[in-house]
Amino acid sequence: MAFMLLSFYRAPLGFLLFLFLTSFRFAMGGNLLVIPQDGSHWLSMQAVVEELHQRGHKIVMVIPEVTIHIRPSQHYTVRTYPVPYSKEYLELRIKELSFNIFAEEPFLQKVFTMYKRISNFSRFMFSACKHFLLENEMIQTLNESKFDAIFIDPTFPCGEIVAEYLSLPSVYFLRGIPCAIEYEVSQCPSPPSYVPRIFTSYTDHMTFPQRVKNLLVNHLNPLLCSILYSQYGNLASEFLQRDVTVLDLFSHASVWLLRYDFVFEYPRPVMPNMIFIGGVNCAQRKNLSQEFENLVTSSGENGIVIFSLGSMISGIPLKKAMEIATALGSIQQTVLWRYTGQTLPNLAKNIKLMKWLPQNDLLAHPKTRAFVTHAGSHGIYEGICNAVPMVLLPLFGDQMDNAKRIESRGAGVTLNILDMTSLDLSNALNAVINEPKYKKNIKRLSALHLDKPIHPLDLAVYWVEFVMRHKGASHLRPAAPNLDWFQYHSLDVVAFLLVILPSGLFVILKCCSFCCRKCCTLKGRFKKM
Amino acid sequence: MAFMLLSFYRAPLGFLLFLFLTSFRFAMGGNLLVIPQDGSHWLSMQAVVEELHQRGHKIVMVIPEVTIHIRPSQHYTVRTYPVPYSKEYLELRIKELSFNIFAEEPFLQKVFTMYKRISNFSRFMFSACKHFLLENEMIQTLNESKFDAIFIDPTFPCGEIVAEYLSLPSVYFLRGIPCAIEYEVSQCPSPPSYVPRIFTSYTDHMTFPQRVKNLLVNHLNPLLCSILYSQYGNLASEFLQRDVTVLDLFSHASVWLLRYDFVFEYPRPVMPNMIFIGGVNCAQRKNLSQEFENLVTSSGENGIVIFSLGSMISGIPLKKAMEIATALGSIQQTVLWRYTGQTLPNLAKNIKLMKWLPQNDLLAHPKTRAFVTHAGSHGIYEGICNAVPMVLLPLFGDQMDNAKRIESRGAGVTLNILDMTSLDLSNALNAVINEPKYKKNIKRLSALHLDKPIHPLDLAVYWVEFVMRHKGASHLRPAAPNLDWFQYHSLDVVAFLLVILPSGLFVILKCCSFCCRKCCTLKGRFKKM
Repeated sequence: MAFMLLSFYRAPLGFLLFLFLTSFRFAMGGNLLVIPQDGSHWLSMQAVVEELHQRGHKIVMVIPEVTIHIRPSQHYTVRTYPVPYSKEYLELRIKELSFNIFAEEPFLQKVFTMYKRISNFSRFMFSACKHFLLENEMIQTLNESKFDAIFIDPTFPCGEIVAEYLSLPSVYFLRGIPCAIEYEVSQCPSPPSYVPRIFTSYTDHMTFPQRVKNLLVNHLNPLLCSILYSQYGNLASEFLQRDVTVLDLFSHASVWLLRYDFVFEYPRPVMPNMIFIGGVNCAQRKNLSQEFENLVTSSGENGIVIFSLGSMISGIPLKKAMEIATALGSIQQTVLWRYTGQTLPNLAKNIKLMKWLPQNDLLAHPKTRAFVTHAGSHGIYEGICNAVPMVLLPLFGDQMDNAKRIESRGAGVTLNILDMTSLDLSNALNAVINEPKYKKNIKRLSALHLDKPIHPLDLAVYWVEFVMRHKGASHLRPAAPNLDWFQYHSLDVVAFLLVILPSGLFVILKCCSFCCRKCCTLKGRFKKM
Repeated sequence: MAFMLLSFYRAPLGFLLFLFLTSFRFAMGGNLLVIPQDGSHWLSMQAVVEELHQRGHKIVMVIPEVTIHIRPSQHYTVRTYPVPYSKEYLELRIKELSFNIFAEEPFLQKVFTMYKRISNFSRFMFSACKHFLLENEMIQTLNESKFDAIFIDPTFPCGEIVAEYLSLPSVYFLRGIPCAIEYEVSQCPSPPSYVPRIFTSYTDHMTFPQRVKNLLVNHLNPLLCSILYSQYGNLASEFLQRDVTVLDLFSHASVWLLRYDFVFEYPRPVMPNMIFIGGVNCAQRKNLSQEFENLVTSSGENGIVIFSLGSMISGIPLKKAMEIATALGSIQQTVLWRYTGQTLPNLAKNIKLMKWLPQNDLLAHPKTRAFVTHAGSHGIYEGICNAVPMVLLPLFGDQMDNAKRIESRGAGVTLNILDMTSLDLSNALNAVINEPKYKKNIKRLSALHLDKPIHPLDLAVYWVEFVMRHKGASHLRPAAPNLDWFQYHSLDVVAFLLVILPSGLFVILKCCSFCCRKCCTLKGRFKKM
């Protein structure tokens, strides 16, 4: 593998070099193994993989036989492993996760159903992983392929097991893991006093009761980790023929590529091997097709509104869809609604239902006035990149937290999709479209987000290549993992200083005083003799 | 002020834009106020200021009338304020600080003298600051100049007071502050279990007794801060006409430009508004003059050794210099020694004494075999950039820590300049020159250090401009400063959960049980009646 070192001394020569390296393929690229996760996660990881291919690297990607978003491509070699389910079954499992939102069940029943479905989904992913690891022949081939590094979506730790088995340095690509294990394993402090935990919908300014709840939620993380990952420890130990815990599996990242940007996330302590590439998915902008260009142009002065609840929701109940349609019909803008549910009667003329939208390209159009979104992180970054104020209808997972972040920055209005009325939605839309503060705030966020010395996609590619060039990035890993938790928090030192040292001194003093007294007594006796 | 936003979508167009912006001056630049510190600190800050000038910004720099390294330049407007000392007096104060190293005094006497001199130097800097703030007319002119930002070396917090007075967003440029106040004010966690404190010479792998000492040293920081800065609180309160503490003064940085790189520093938690620009001083490499080129060429196959104890040491005792000369005379390389002390008799032919050396350019020469340095951070980065193994002779301040870092990476040998013999020095030189491990390790560090997506100098300039463009970077500041220390550590929440909540519940239970008993008693009475 022949890499060129970017020791550019200095601009403009350095940038000419960089430009050269970026624009043209390497004469000889490296070998990269990629283990992604299906679903929306893949959408932004794909951009990085494609770019790595453009830069001349040979890429082998391992995926299950059955996928939804991941497709074979001429840009990388795809190796598949058999799984004991069909595409229909996989789609059903994913639909189940999102359908639960609209189910008319008592709250506790809903939570229980959700728990059961997450737990089922987790078991389902585990079963796919087991099938991967049973593919002896494929794993043997991977072992012989002499990869320079492995590029993993670590949400379910199957790639991590393979990385360990093949002794490859790894780059993790993620937004975050539900039980925040990434902070635990990278020894990154997360003070619960101002770093809100996932699923709380808190900001970084919490009231006392919120801080109490945040601390309690923090202590529930191990439970959540256990629901998601408890089986992987045994699987890894069996496969690697040595004792491995789930924490061990996650702890080997050379570099964490986090889809984070601090115009969206709240500032917090971070570690040197965390690289922030929030907005990586905004990169691939294209011109609109004639169909969409015509639709946008015909909207006139009023412009358009983009409505999408993401790829995970395939349909919403008819009653709710009708309410939404009433609200959308009441505004002056043309609404492009990504909708795949039942046919809606008496639809207002300004509403155009589409099975798919070129979301980022539409958001980039100057006629776009607002974005109604389920507050998935990809969509939100597209909203920020293109400075479009948002109406946020979070459905599940981290979407409530995402919505709160945008709302707390004054760049959008959050509604509860279950409780909201038509009037709530049309009021929210009118507010973000007509009140200048929303546009002003999202423009400020957008300007800050876009003002970067290097584009997030190039930064992501750069760090994958860095790990390939140097076989890891051990100089960025703190020494903390060598310490036990009580050592990390200096509890042994504090105990020593507060208890053991004074006690020791007390005992020594007592011994001395005892000896002195003995001596005096003996002297007294000698004198008497 | 007309800035162009770097919202480049995407390479290669983005890099073309970047190249354009980097290579040519802006049509209209911004206005920047610079308040530097004299001494070696200025050497790397100057590179950033020069580059900002190249990029078309109008720069006003405020310095005392009497300086050592800072000189007027056509690249920036210099405004001076009178100080009650001469250049000779300033040089004497600085010499005093370094001369103490070689003084033949008992240890405690030495520590006391050093404390007195640091304290004197601090008072001396304070007096200069007071004279600056008395310059009403100049401060009025600065106030009217409508600067976009202020660029400060924050070591002594005079620039910080001016920044507050002029309400300017500020960028701090530093390696570190002796009492580590930068971590306290930016709410950056620094676990003493693996983050070694300054002046301890520990690595990030500490034994138990080292961790005990590290924790104790940590608690001495406020005392050190008080020695250095206690007077600035009152001065600032008086000048700003409101209560201001020293912590307040340091806490307003929009961005911290830290001369850090994790091939040299130990990895540790950091904050989003900390930007790492270690090696910024390696940028300005030039060709050697004919005199030096001839000297290097004539060294033949054996090559050269560079010897410099930095700009703070103007002379070393003759006896020590003779010992060093004996060692240098015993090796096969030509030694270029930056030496300004007394004349040395019978000097070996391979030793060339020079009053000044183009250190970075010499270190970059392929014939350079080793670098004997006092382990100042600038010199060490030049050694790393150019992959030259080092013999480290630390003298004072952070130099012992710096030396330990290079030694712990296997890229150099540390000697105690006071105790070492001629043989120790020649052995150390022969080791780093002839044992391949030293060259291998420094080459590895160098490769990692140079492998960056953007050069540290460009990164520094970028972030100064970022703060100028956006009038700060508040989105990178954590919410933690809004919390009291006990809130930050969730102690109030823990107290509530462990003590107050159970006590409250206990009282409620007791009340209920009391009421029940009362009711039962009353019922009993009623029954009896």
